[in-house]
Amino acid sequence: MYNNLFSDILKEHNKIQIKKPLIHHITNMVTMNDCANISTALGSLPIMAIDVNEVAEITSNSNALVLNIGTPSDERFLAMKLSGIEANNKNIPIILDPVGVSSSSYRLKKVNELLEVIKPSVIKGNLAEVMALCGYKSQKSKGVDSFEEDNFEKYAKELSLKTSSVVVITGKEDFIYDARTNRSESIKFGTEMMKSISGGGCMTSSIIGSFAAVMQEDIFLSAVLGTSLMNIAALCTINKDKEMGSATFKIGLIDSIYNLNKTLDIAKRYL
Amino acid sequence: MYNNLFSDILKEHNKIQIKKPLIHHITNMVTMNDCANISTALGSLPIMAIDVNEVAEITSNSNALVLNIGTPSDERFLAMKLSGIEANNKNIPIILDPVGVSSSSYRLKKVNELLEVIKPSVIKGNLAEVMALCGYKSQKSKGVDSFEEDNFEKYAKELSLKTSSVVVITGKEDFIYDARTNRSESIKFGTEMMKSISGGGCMTSSIIGSFAAVMQEDIFLSAVLGTSLMNIAALCTINKDKEMGSATFKIGLIDSIYNLNKTLDIAKRYL
Amino acid sequence: MYNNLFSDILKEHNKIQIKKPLIHHITNMVTMNDCANISTALGSLPIMAIDVNEVAEITSNSNALVLNIGTPSDERFLAMKLSGIEANNKNIPIILDPVGVSSSSYRLKKVNELLEVIKPSVIKGNLAEVMALCGYKSQKSKGVDSFEEDNFEKYAKELSLKTSSVVVITGKEDFIYDARTNRSESIKFGTEMMKSISGGGCMTSSIIGSFAAVMQEDIFLSAVLGTSLMNIAALCTINKDKEMGSATFKIGLIDSIYNLNKTLDIAKRYL
Repeated sequence: MYNNLFSDILKEHNKIQIKKPLIHHITNMVTMNDCANISTALGSLPIMAIDVNEVAEITSNSNALVLNIGTPSDERFLAMKLSGIEANNKNIPIILDPVGVSSSSYRLKKVNELLEVIKPSVIKGNLAEVMALCGYKSQKSKGVDSFEEDNFEKYAKELSLKTSSVVVITGKEDFIYDARTNRSESIKFGTEMMKSISGGGCMTSSIIGSFAAVMQEDIFLSAVLGTSLMNIAALCTINKDKEMGSATFKIGLIDSIYNLNKTLDIAKRYL
Repeated sequence: MYNNLFSDILKEHNKIQIKKPLIHHITNMVTMNDCANISTALGSLPIMAIDVNEVAEITSNSNALVLNIGTPSDERFLAMKLSGIEANNKNIPIILDPVGVSSSSYRLKKVNELLEVIKPSVIKGNLAEVMALCGYKSQKSKGVDSFEEDNFEKYAKELSLKTSSVVVITGKEDFIYDARTNRSESIKFGTEMMKSISGGGCMTSSIIGSFAAVMQEDIFLSAVLGTSLMNIAALCTINKDKEMGSATFKIGLIDSIYNLNKTLDIAKRYL
Repeated sequence: MYNNLFSDILKEHNKIQIKKPLIHHITNMVTMNDCANISTALGSLPIMAIDVNEVAEITSNSNALVLNIGTPSDERFLAMKLSGIEANNKNIPIILDPVGVSSSSYRLKKVNELLEVIKPSVIKGNLAEVMALCGYKSQKSKGVDSFEEDNFEKYAKELSLKTSSVVVITGKEDFIYDARTNRSESIKFGTEMMKSISGGGCMTSSIIGSFAAVMQEDIFLSAVLGTSLMNIAALCTINKDKEMGSATFKIGLIDSIYNLNKTLDIAKRYL
């Protein structure tokens, strides 16, 4: 059923391994290590620079820019702006992960300011985060790892129309929409265990960044492949041992990305 | 022997899993990831915000506030002050972990200033840290992960009387004292292996934060349960394989917290 | 063949376990946790302080200072300068890891300024980083985890002569040179899998720091032992299961350092 998905992932992964794209992350302090390790597992070269004195130069030599707003500060947002402008000028894809934007008026104001001057290729968030960027206040907003199941399609479309970015809403199921080409995709094989770790969403953004770095001609598909791959890795990991703990699950996720061919072979049994 | 302890942990853990408390951490950069993952393993939702522009708002929507002073800076201490005042105003429990306060006069001065304006529910440190807050200079102070065995009761009582906070001193054995109710508890089943990892103490503070978030009516007991649970997790983990390495031990600790029911079942064999 | 190497590592490791040296790290935010855990695994006590208000005091009580310039900022470089001056004044060995210095003109300028006022005992980098410090521009510079195989000896000698520091160039093979004593060493048993994780180089610097802390009388040998030990740990880890994933490999690396005696026993089979 998912033969095309699998072969697309393999094909693009091969391109990642050959190109070894440099992925500049301006990201939160909590999950930086996870993002770096998922990138190296995939075959990319991560670089994390945050200082306004160097971020634009680092971005200019990179193949994708991942902006993750967790643990934000004024200086971090300024760095994102400088890097984002550089990336847009050089047609380097930007992945924006508005972590916790529904949890603080400061984050919402700053992300909205950012979106006035830069154009992300992909915006990936949970429902509360996407709703916040659409201008709504979620009733359920809580923390940065919340998991909701509502009207994903409506809000993904609204934000994509508003920003011209591909929008990914993650949750028990994921929904991806691209207003420019009017394409959408649902990913219906989420793993409940993802809620038990921190950094799952951040790593998904990093993976999308690696795919986008080698497939700028089809950013929508890069978002579909990256988001799908994270779900496939989770599914294969949890199926090794349904009683594993959450830390072992996280290790298994990264291992599954590293052993991509084997992971896709296993996935065929479940999907 | 520990039947009450086990049933209390189970009961309160059940409340954590239902309430999914939001635990705001203003914590050090070294072990943020560990603190986030131990919180999600337990069923809480961690959020790490550090900027003075948003910390009070984030705290106001949280169920507990964990202040860990590792890798400090003036701005971090200001954020702790703003969040702490908000937490005190809203009766949100504060866990203070004065990491390395015995290692630098800057940290000592700043924590003392903090304690003039905020009142933590729990202060958790090693002996050198608690002695420093009492105004003594430990002869043995060294690093942030030191392990001492001296006169825990004396200094726990002194700091608790001085601050009206529940005081937890961790070491080979842990001692917990509450001056307001004159209750104390010793935890005598520490695991030597805890010295081989970084972040053990920080994760203990996070766990206490999660318990305190659902049992504000008995902060002393939340400190006892949180501290005991970390020791139980360590004991069960090391007993799986006494030759395991330190990184596997750390993974096992988080797994043991995630699989709490199974861990308590195993613990009955050893305690 | 490597009997002397093994016995030297064992002897110095024993000194680390007895002395429990305090290793002050001013290091990047991405791999701080890894550096802390590899230090505790080895028996050292890591402390990470970054604020200009406390770094010199923390350094003055430490046994080695590890300066890693990843995720840099003006304030971080100032902290490195203050700590470095203190370390030089007190003859505390400094290990400098110029992460990504070949990727940004800001980093290069700042490291060169730093080298005008402090003298590291050891400088450890990949070829692109060492070439940048020699004043060349590498054709291959890309990211912070790049792996090159060129003319290591030439550039190690050039930088060592220029700085009077022991210079370690890491790659598929590692080369170590000390201009002051005209000694050199090649380490020819690198493990390809090191490329699949983030933090390998940073952990190597931490390990060198721990050895340097107990063997100031022979810094060259401390660099040889630290670098060799990381390679030995990698070799033994990968040989447990050649199909392991990258996250399991990283856990195994730290475990192998923790179980040092067992690791050296296993290494005898391969070296």
